[in-house]
Amino acid sequence: MKVGVVGASGYVGGELLRLLSTHPDVELNMVTSRTYAGEYVHRIHPSLKGFIDLTFSPLNIDKLTENDLVFTSVPHGKALEIVKRLYDAGVKVIDLSADYRLKNPKAYVEYYGYEHPYPEMLLKSVYGIPELHREEIRNARLISSPGCMAVTSLLGLAPLLKNNLVDTKHIIVDSKIGSSGAGGKPSASTHHAMRAGVIRPYKPVKHRHTAEIEQELSIIAKEDVKISMTPHAVDLVRGILCTNHTFLTKEVDIQQLWKIYRGMYKGEPFIRLIRDTKGIYKYPDPKFVVGSNFCDIGFDIDEKNNRLVALSASDNLMKGAAGSAIQCMNIVQGFNESNGLKYTPFTPV
Amino acid sequence: MKVGVVGASGYVGGELLRLLSTHPDVELNMVTSRTYAGEYVHRIHPSLKGFIDLTFSPLNIDKLTENDLVFTSVPHGKALEIVKRLYDAGVKVIDLSADYRLKNPKAYVEYYGYEHPYPEMLLKSVYGIPELHREEIRNARLISSPGCMAVTSLLGLAPLLKNNLVDTKHIIVDSKIGSSGAGGKPSASTHHAMRAGVIRPYKPVKHRHTAEIEQELSIIAKEDVKISMTPHAVDLVRGILCTNHTFLTKEVDIQQLWKIYRGMYKGEPFIRLIRDTKGIYKYPDPKFVVGSNFCDIGFDIDEKNNRLVALSASDNLMKGAAGSAIQCMNIVQGFNESNGLKYTPFTPV
Amino acid sequence: MKVGVVGASGYVGGELLRLLSTHPDVELNMVTSRTYAGEYVHRIHPSLKGFIDLTFSPLNIDKLTENDLVFTSVPHGKALEIVKRLYDAGVKVIDLSADYRLKNPKAYVEYYGYEHPYPEMLLKSVYGIPELHREEIRNARLISSPGCMAVTSLLGLAPLLKNNLVDTKHIIVDSKIGSSGAGGKPSASTHHAMRAGVIRPYKPVKHRHTAEIEQELSIIAKEDVKISMTPHAVDLVRGILCTNHTFLTKEVDIQQLWKIYRGMYKGEPFIRLIRDTKGIYKYPDPKFVVGSNFCDIGFDIDEKNNRLVALSASDNLMKGAAGSAIQCMNIVQGFNESNGLKYTPFTPV
Amino acid sequence: MKVGVVGASGYVGGELLRLLSTHPDVELNMVTSRTYAGEYVHRIHPSLKGFIDLTFSPLNIDKLTENDLVFTSVPHGKALEIVKRLYDAGVKVIDLSADYRLKNPKAYVEYYGYEHPYPEMLLKSVYGIPELHREEIRNARLISSPGCMAVTSLLGLAPLLKNNLVDTKHIIVDSKIGSSGAGGKPSASTHHAMRAGVIRPYKPVKHRHTAEIEQELSIIAKEDVKISMTPHAVDLVRGILCTNHTFLTKEVDIQQLWKIYRGMYKGEPFIRLIRDTKGIYKYPDPKFVVGSNFCDIGFDIDEKNNRLVALSASDNLMKGAAGSAIQCMNIVQGFNESNGLKYTPFTPV
Repeated sequence: MKVGVVGASGYVGGELLRLLSTHPDVELNMVTSRTYAGEYVHRIHPSLKGFIDLTFSPLNIDKLTENDLVFTSVPHGKALEIVKRLYDAGVKVIDLSADYRLKNPKAYVEYYGYEHPYPEMLLKSVYGIPELHREEIRNARLISSPGCMAVTSLLGLAPLLKNNLVDTKHIIVDSKIGSSGAGGKPSASTHHAMRAGVIRPYKPVKHRHTAEIEQELSIIAKEDVKISMTPHAVDLVRGILCTNHTFLTKEVDIQQLWKIYRGMYKGEPFIRLIRDTKGIYKYPDPKFVVGSNFCDIGFDIDEKNNRLVALSASDNLMKGAAGSAIQCMNIVQGFNESNGLKYTPFTPV
Repeated sequence: MKVGVVGASGYVGGELLRLLSTHPDVELNMVTSRTYAGEYVHRIHPSLKGFIDLTFSPLNIDKLTENDLVFTSVPHGKALEIVKRLYDAGVKVIDLSADYRLKNPKAYVEYYGYEHPYPEMLLKSVYGIPELHREEIRNARLISSPGCMAVTSLLGLAPLLKNNLVDTKHIIVDSKIGSSGAGGKPSASTHHAMRAGVIRPYKPVKHRHTAEIEQELSIIAKEDVKISMTPHAVDLVRGILCTNHTFLTKEVDIQQLWKIYRGMYKGEPFIRLIRDTKGIYKYPDPKFVVGSNFCDIGFDIDEKNNRLVALSASDNLMKGAAGSAIQCMNIVQGFNESNGLKYTPFTPV
Repeated sequence: MKVGVVGASGYVGGELLRLLSTHPDVELNMVTSRTYAGEYVHRIHPSLKGFIDLTFSPLNIDKLTENDLVFTSVPHGKALEIVKRLYDAGVKVIDLSADYRLKNPKAYVEYYGYEHPYPEMLLKSVYGIPELHREEIRNARLISSPGCMAVTSLLGLAPLLKNNLVDTKHIIVDSKIGSSGAGGKPSASTHHAMRAGVIRPYKPVKHRHTAEIEQELSIIAKEDVKISMTPHAVDLVRGILCTNHTFLTKEVDIQQLWKIYRGMYKGEPFIRLIRDTKGIYKYPDPKFVVGSNFCDIGFDIDEKNNRLVALSASDNLMKGAAGSAIQCMNIVQGFNESNGLKYTPFTPV
Repeated sequence: MKVGVVGASGYVGGELLRLLSTHPDVELNMVTSRTYAGEYVHRIHPSLKGFIDLTFSPLNIDKLTENDLVFTSVPHGKALEIVKRLYDAGVKVIDLSADYRLKNPKAYVEYYGYEHPYPEMLLKSVYGIPELHREEIRNARLISSPGCMAVTSLLGLAPLLKNNLVDTKHIIVDSKIGSSGAGGKPSASTHHAMRAGVIRPYKPVKHRHTAEIEQELSIIAKEDVKISMTPHAVDLVRGILCTNHTFLTKEVDIQQLWKIYRGMYKGEPFIRLIRDTKGIYKYPDPKFVVGSNFCDIGFDIDEKNNRLVALSASDNLMKGAAGSAIQCMNIVQGFNESNGLKYTPFTPV
């Protein structure tokens, strides 16, 4: 199968290339970059030297339609037209921007500051979390890959909402993320000297991923769920931890929680439940998923305050972006769902 | 004035030595360490080479009573006797362990696992946050320096509780802390290869500092306050950020919040309010207080969910430990409150 | 083929497990650890959760002889007996300690402080760098995997010595290495708070790997080569850079150097030559090999001082240890040399 | 005394402001920045909030001449005119660019790519290392502050050259530096995701600081000294280690080296000799000078190869830039040489 990648010079684009270059069912046919058209891929992604001999092409929709499937990995707002045109030309699209994630067109005005030009497309787009929408993904022509913090938080919270365990108006998602989550564009705030050693709250209220999480959890809970999200930049390159603070509406113990989480994620190839009572690795930590497509999930209960903390960790470029997208591609194409994703995370890194 | 430091080979001990070695009103007379008795201080704290010529002494209470004031910086449980004996001998004590922080003896059983041998002492001990207890500190003979996450969180939350602005049963303190917070004892979990790049939730519920925060906020709020605290180890050496998530019980806007925070902290030498509407430094970040005694505080409001996020950042070894202790010493001795603490934080570091 | 790993709880051991757990030709049969006997592997190596269901066994040589091949990954001195007994029992051994690396028994006294008990074994042992000894490895029964800095430096220097290009008495190897190179045992010097942000020269003269490098380069150069090595601990977990400073004895230009390096490494699956004249990735950097078995090599010439700088970068746990060992296993067993090692490095990490 | 700072929004500029804001003998009168004219200083240097109330001014030479002394901290090439005009107006200037460091005008063509417009000024400029040129500094009107790696390396090597101990044609300076050394301008190579975890050789031959080091050492050695320098970017923000590899021309032992180094640096307020035979801090490490004006120096001998390794560590923004400049100001103004520089480094950081 021929595959193209639009916006392949960014960090997410580079990760797609890493995964596609060794994927057994794929021919990587065309990779585009406005900025680096004409340059060899490994000049921008040096780790890929020896794996990809392509050069970046300029964006050319007509040529892209020669592919069976195209990944679009461009900034929000820039994917609107590209995706529409590829879709209309009959190419399957997996979009890694936010442009087709939300079902409610008004949310684009509120969170992204633009009027969505193709609101009818929003209902055709499938939100690309296999653990939540596997059957719809199988039949999709347009898949919208989730935000990195959104997918991580959602996988931690979904079983709780599905089982109506928690107060839907007091859910706090406190997330921590590495520097690759900011994208590759240099700026004063990403300069190493200013970014190293930070614990920087960068959008304490109204972060955009809030919209996706509320959308998906409201579907699952069958009621209007409110999410209070605060993301923080911390000093690592890859990785997200979502600390999902919830208040219980029912009494529940750890054994029941195991059952609830196992019930939802049994057989899932990329979910691991992490909860130990001894040793130093009792809870999920993104350190132990780096480079892999896992989302590690754990939990704990504070009986005194009726609080349940659900912890979820992922590699923001993998399960948080390129890995989820490849997983969706495998599903929509009928490949083995783990193909091209069998990367063991490694310790220490 | 003659000063002694018990437990001077740890990170907090070393920071006390750094501050005392250049303090204009103090003669550093005796520094003890069981492990390193006989060694020069700079062999353990190499940055202090040229500043302190002392060697570590073994613990000797009688000799310590020759000092006017003694700092005790030993692990929880180990300070109980040392503090009592020094106190009984008429020496002023500033204890940096948790052994004299809590007023309710039962809390020691619950949080620290021991029966407090001197419950009557708990009421004599003053909780060492100058911004909350300056007058009591002035007249104290025993000051119990607060936990690093406790003081940071308390300074962010106190004005809200004082003004009855927030729901006292749904306060989440999500804190992030550097590796020096774990103390200097080597272990598998502090090994650089395992500690670098982590976002490790290490005590998602029932962390010990919860007890102090609830104690102090309940006094301020004049009602029973519940704190839901989850600390995380992140990849830096010094620094704490507390993200204090609260839900508003009254409508309040940003201007009113400025007034409330300024009202409480006006004239405080070590509180800075940080909130900007442009630039990259809109909120507190421990990166910008490293090495100094500041606690930087900021806030934001999420009108949609009636949420208020109060952010507070400190250097865990300074305002979070040694700096607060020196500030208390200055108060109790009648020195200028900033003496020995005029360290500009520096950027970048 | 049945494989055992002795000393599997360390960092190198864990990396062997990562690679073996997905190796297509191997059945991982037995993993030993004194300290963690009885524990599940993933309790010590959390990233391997879901990949290995074994528990650690205590060391039992008899049981180990049921394997076709055993990796020994224990500290220097501890492998002497284990290797000998396995060898005598007819098991192929790949030893990752230094105990069988040096040909000259006297060097063990000088560099390791012990009298080698089996000097006759030293000549039977093959030094496990495929790029230098592939044919001998193919027929070996005992392979001694090289030191991490040794193999990295050797691969950078070998072509120069082979072509008699440089002054053999003024070779400086200035190496920089991450914290995983120190092994997993906690100590004051590996504590994150003391290890983060260092540039720590830790054995400016007489580092043990000097002996291996001199041994191998002297063979290649057919004369007595002197190496002046100074290693430094820097703030990363995985990775080595060797800056090999040499002085030219002949005039040579960059084109000739390309030819010389390509001549030696043509067809090598795990050597990449890195030298670009524009962009930001002009020379090797361990950042771009992390997780992979590559050794990236580059060079530059300083005509003014007749100096040639050869730069070589590897992941110390991969090409520097476990990766090289697996590559040797593939050769000695007649497997495809890249099997189990097809890990793309990833950027950024 | 009234002081101005030109180019005060960069990292070196910010460090000058930190030091000047608490200097007892100085009135900080004017700080300029083209980019940030009109902004409050603390918006760019957030750690200085509460210390400086000034806003940045645009560059105005006439206004700058109202100062007694001006620091110029602008990129190489940009200082040429500013310095000349201030000098001609009778203002004392301490220039932190390279524009007035080299005595030989031809070296500017070779290393900096420009023809120096005021070669006659080069002899009037004093190279600002107090340990080497204190008396000339005292009488200077133009002081050229040294390059960060140059001063660090020079302080390590000077005693050896002064005593004719080493082969002047085989001196290797292998230096490692943090990200603040690259200046504050964002770029692909300084982005945290690409800069974290690197060991990046960035100018293996012909680095510009070579010219300064050769100039100064040749004066000291009274012969033509050749320096082979290779700098590396490593993962820290502040700090330089220079590993100065030399070959001995005379036999010398450690005791004699102590004598030689003590002889040269006795009484120097900002030189510490670091060499211990036990413990974990045997040699200099920039970690232990961060925030201070110290240059820590150590050494070791490799008798086998007649090699002497001289290790020197500094904070690149302090002794490597702003700290040295302030020290020079103190000398030229007749202040106490340590005023405004009494910052204890702190551990851990």
